[in-house]
This record gives sequence, structure tokens and C-alpha cells, in this order.
Amino acid sequence: MSHNRIHNFNAGPAALPTSVLEEVQESLLNFKGSGMSVTEISHRSKQFDDIINDAVERTKRLLKLDDRFKVLFIQGGASMQFCMIPMNFLGGNKSADYVDTGTWSTKAIKEVEIQGKKINVVASSKDKNYSYIPKGISFNKDAAYVHLTSNNTIKGTQWASFPDTNNVPIVSDMSSDIMSRPLDMDKFGFIYAGAQKNIGPSGLCMVIIREDMLSMVPDDLPSMLKYSTYSSKNSMYNTPPCFGVYMVQLVMKWLEETIGGLEKMDAINRKKGETLYGFMDSSDFYNATAEPDSRSLMNVTFRLPSEDLEKKFIDEAQKNGLGGLKGHRSVGGCRASIYNATGQDAVDALVDFMKEFEKKNG
Amino acid sequence: MSHNRIHNFNAGPAALPTSVLEEVQESLLNFKGSGMSVTEISHRSKQFDDIINDAVERTKRLLKLDDRFKVLFIQGGASMQFCMIPMNFLGGNKSADYVDTGTWSTKAIKEVEIQGKKINVVASSKDKNYSYIPKGISFNKDAAYVHLTSNNTIKGTQWASFPDTNNVPIVSDMSSDIMSRPLDMDKFGFIYAGAQKNIGPSGLCMVIIREDMLSMVPDDLPSMLKYSTYSSKNSMYNTPPCFGVYMVQLVMKWLEETIGGLEKMDAINRKKGETLYGFMDSSDFYNATAEPDSRSLMNVTFRLPSEDLEKKFIDEAQKNGLGGLKGHRSVGGCRASIYNATGQDAVDALVDFMKEFEKKNG
Repeated sequence: MSHNRIHNFNAGPAALPTSVLEEVQESLLNFKGSGMSVTEISHRSKQFDDIINDAVERTKRLLKLDDRFKVLFIQGGASMQFCMIPMNFLGGNKSADYVDTGTWSTKAIKEVEIQGKKINVVASSKDKNYSYIPKGISFNKDAAYVHLTSNNTIKGTQWASFPDTNNVPIVSDMSSDIMSRPLDMDKFGFIYAGAQKNIGPSGLCMVIIREDMLSMVPDDLPSMLKYSTYSSKNSMYNTPPCFGVYMVQLVMKWLEETIGGLEKMDAINRKKGETLYGFMDSSDFYNATAEPDSRSLMNVTFRLPSEDLEKKFIDEAQKNGLGGLKGHRSVGGCRASIYNATGQDAVDALVDFMKEFEKKNG
Repeated sequence: MSHNRIHNFNAGPAALPTSVLEEVQESLLNFKGSGMSVTEISHRSKQFDDIINDAVERTKRLLKLDDRFKVLFIQGGASMQFCMIPMNFLGGNKSADYVDTGTWSTKAIKEVEIQGKKINVVASSKDKNYSYIPKGISFNKDAAYVHLTSNNTIKGTQWASFPDTNNVPIVSDMSSDIMSRPLDMDKFGFIYAGAQKNIGPSGLCMVIIREDMLSMVPDDLPSMLKYSTYSSKNSMYNTPPCFGVYMVQLVMKWLEETIGGLEKMDAINRKKGETLYGFMDSSDFYNATAEPDSRSLMNVTFRLPSEDLEKKFIDEAQKNGLGGLKGHRSVGGCRASIYNATGQDAVDALVDFMKEFEKKNG
């Protein structure tokens, strides 16, 4: 661990590649010989144009986006998208289908209801405390879109594949698994992702929008709440979150040049998941909380035999250089977030620690 | 100039104190021995609580805010505030007074009109190309608020003092002069400021709201568009722009501990302004564009005898380590933005260069 860095299992803001952080560090007083910090250059400069255009182009290559898709950077996190999505896509008398897989989709649903827009909650896993991803859902053919949360950071569930929606575009919150695997983009009309888990710091949200979705945007929305404002100005109608865009650019470069693309990233993530879930399945001491076919490869949630042992586990792990293992305050327990930047070495170190802890306390 | 840094006259994103950038740089791989970057720590951690609380407390001390005021951090820049302000404060049948001093106030007015809210534009300096701040304005006693832009970055104008509004709260966009001088807070109900000029990087907006203004917020707004959401959760209803809040904290610390408060900052800024305007007043070659009693101490806009000379001036200045002197693309000419972090040394170097340039080209 260079720079005395710990293994970081935070749920977000979360681990970023050390090489990215080193490059950011170098640019903080003098960015590429400009004599200015990367935080001090104008967003109307050639330097920043290069940053944002490279971030967009790398995103397009990584996800194999064709020319129908625009990549935007919007502030306010995924939570702002919860309200912007119905505002932009449910004009007139339209309605949308939502799947409720817990916390984040529940919040997304609430923000549609606040606006008095029409909505059908077509499936929910609330009956089993959101521990699984619903299957065999009937979607409405006339829905403007189908909304789903691809990965639930709190309950540790993830859609292993995306459902057939009768060509209704999927609108997906991918805050916690964007860029963790390749996507079949034919199914998606709109993807959004708060950056602070897999692709950058907090303070910006990546939005991928298919151009036909832009035609649904009503004219009379405030400028900053309309997707067309962002798409017509390359996300620079007003000053964008420049530092965040810069970090996203570097993370995309790392994904392309160091990792080698999303197929490779996916393979790495699968191996990490197998290591951790595989170990827990062989143990009676640790219990993964999500149903096996709905397990998240990003957020591994688990319980120990008692809350006292969980507290001891989290504290001792921290002392052993394994940070951020506490479960979300709404559910308790333990959680290891193993996003892209948390490597196999971190997972191996965690499993070693878990074995040792079980031996002493089991 | 350490780190081979230039004198940075950018309008925003703009110069930040070098000592602040050095501290940020140190925290990028391992923040205060946490083993994590400042961009990787959880917003629910003790470390981040300390950051945001310190940023708020220092802001309160610097502006001498009493307990009626809350300091919030919101994403989307000042442009998002243009639409949030009427959404939050013009519920029911209320109306507001707006003063139009160009570009930014014009945009703020447009975002009220898009929402179909009632508005009175009580004064405008459009008749003289926004080169002055209107005087002797009659405000409506029953207005919910009076909106004004304290400093116009593009036209180089600034309110030297704030008008008597018959106790109607002033709502002011202070993006480009927040923390440049002390304020008489009795006049203000709401202040907002995109951080990227005087207090931090782009990507967050500081909002100062008096608690009675919170009672005007309608219940049925989307969560992320309501000020009460931010004020009830210390700006952490969702993940805040952590890195930006951290930089704001360090800039506030610099203002308190290195500069010594806003009276001292004001004195420094006045001296910088006198140096630059004083020199131009003694020259026939350089012409400040704003009327003398409306001149901005933050953005000094000026013209040379021809556009060719202006281009040459900007290019040669850049080669001499004086960056960012081009006027806004909407007006042309030259502009020296001399925010808090651009010191007297930078202004002196600029005046020396201007004298030299005039000698050769005058």
C-alpha cells in the first residue's frame, strides 16, 4: 500500500484508483504547464474542452455507445435525477412503470408522486425486505419508460441482466454499478449515475441520454432542469463541476488503458465477488443477506451471529487497514463495497481477516 | 511564483490561494492519516462532519451571521438558484422585485418568467449597456423579496452599497464578490454564490438563508429543489459535493487566519482596485468601461484603442505570465478579474506590463 493507504470498502464516496489520485495531485498547482491549478482553469478554455471531450469520448467507447447517445454531466447527484426524470419525460398525460427494489427506487417513486405524475409500480421486493430482484414482471406497453435501480447499495442486490420491456426504454439509476460491466444499450433510453462510487468524486452525475428521449422534454421547464439545455451546450450552459469532470476523465482513461475495457473490468469484478461470496457460503459464521441470484458484485452485505460481534468485526478490521465495513445506518450489519477501484488484493486481504476473525470468535 | 504559477486573472473558475492548493495536494492520497484521499472519505464520517461544520462556522464568523442564518451548500451553481428562488419564495400569489444590471440578473428574471410567477423589474441599466448600477429605485412594499446581482462579472459593475428596500428582504446573487467585503446582514434574507470565483472550485453554490425565509417554502416541491431539505439535513440529504466543501473550508480558514477577516480583505481589495483604476484614469490608452461610481473591485473591464491592440495585449500578457485577461465573449475587450486570491503583487505586475505595452504601442 503506497502512501500508507488502507483498503477502502466505503459505499460512496468510495475508493478511486491510486494512479488517478496521483495524477490529480500533480495537476493541483500547475496543470500541464499552464501555471494554473486544474481547479483554476477556465471552463471556456481549450484545456477544459480537451478534458470534457475526452471524458465523453472515452465513456462512449467503453460503453460502445452509438451516435444516438449523448453523455452529459449534471449536478445534484442521482437524487436530483429522481425529480428531473418525470419532469422531463412525463409531460402531458404520460405514465411510467417503476420497479421498487428498495431505498433508492423508493425515493425515485416518491419524487414522481410529489409532482402528481402518473406512475405504475409494476413490481416490488418489499415483501422480503428487498433482498431480491423481482422476476417475470409485466410491463405496460404504453409506458413512457420503465425505471429501475440496477444495484442497491444498501440491500446488496443487483440486476444480473435487464428485463424485456416490450421496447419501452429503460431508465436506470446505475450510480453504484456504472462501468462495472458491459451493457446491452439497445434496452436503454436513459442512464444516470452519481459519480462517487465507480467513476469519480461526489458532486456530479453522469447522464447518458438517447436522442429520441430529448424530444419528450417540455419547453416550459426552468433551464437548469431540462436535459435539452445540457445536451445542446455539451454540459456547459453554465459552469460545470470542472474538477469532477476531470476526475471522471482520468477514471475512464484508467478503465481503457490500465484495465483494458469493461469486459475485463467485469471479469475482475466477478472474480472478486466469487472470492468473497464463495468464502461466506463455506462459512456458518458469515451470512450474505441477499438471495443468491440477486447478489450484488458491488456491495456485499452480510451479517455475523450477533450485533456485538459485528461491531467488534468492524472495529478490528479498521485497525487492520480494512476501512468502511459498516452496513448502512438504516439496516445495520456489515457491508463490503468492492467497486472497480477496490482490487482483488483488497478482497483477498478481507477474506484473510474474516477467516482469522472467525477462528478467534466463532 | 512558486510551482511556476502565473498571475491568474480568470473570471471563474479563478485563482485560489496557493497555500490552500498545497494543503489540498497533501490530502489527495492520504487525508489526515485516514489512509484515504479526501475524495474517498464517506460523507457520513466524523472526518467529513468536521469539514462541513468548520466551513459553516467560519462562514458565520467571517460574515458575522447571527443564529437566524443557515449556511447551505447546494449543487447546480447560481444558475440553479435562478429557478429555485422563485419556486421557493413565490408560492401562492406573491410577487418579487428584480433589478436588471445585465446578463446574470437578466437570466434570473427569465427563470422567474418561465415559471409564470409574478415579477416587477423595478430598475434596469440596459439603456447604457449595463455600465452602471441604478440609483433611487422605488421598491414595492408588498414584494416577497428584492433580487439583485451584487457584482456583474461581464460589465464590470458592482453595488458599492445596498439600497433601502423598506424592510423587504434582499435576495442577492453574490457569486463574484462574496467574502470580498463585510456585509450589513440586516438587509439580506438570502445570499447565494457559485463558489468558483472567490471561495472555491466550481460545482457548488453557497447559500445563506434567514430562517423566516424558510417558512415561505411550499410543501409540494421536489425534495432536491426545496431549501428546507438542505437546511434540515446540514446540506447532507444526499451526498454533497464533498471536495468542493473541503476547498471552501480551507479558503475560509485562509480568510480568517492568513488574511485576518473581511475588513482586512476589503482593504486589500480596495488598494488593488485603486492601483488598477488609478493607473487607467491617468492613461488615454486604457479605458475602464464601467461608470466610476459603479466600478467593480472584482472584475475590471477595459478597452484599448482597437480590437487588434486588445488581441495583441492579451497575447503578450499571457507570454509574460499574466493569464485570463480576455473579456467575456459576449462583450469583447479586456478584463482583469482580481478576486481575493489575486494579490497586490499580481495587480502591480499587470500595471507594469500595461505601462510597458502602452509605451511600445501607444
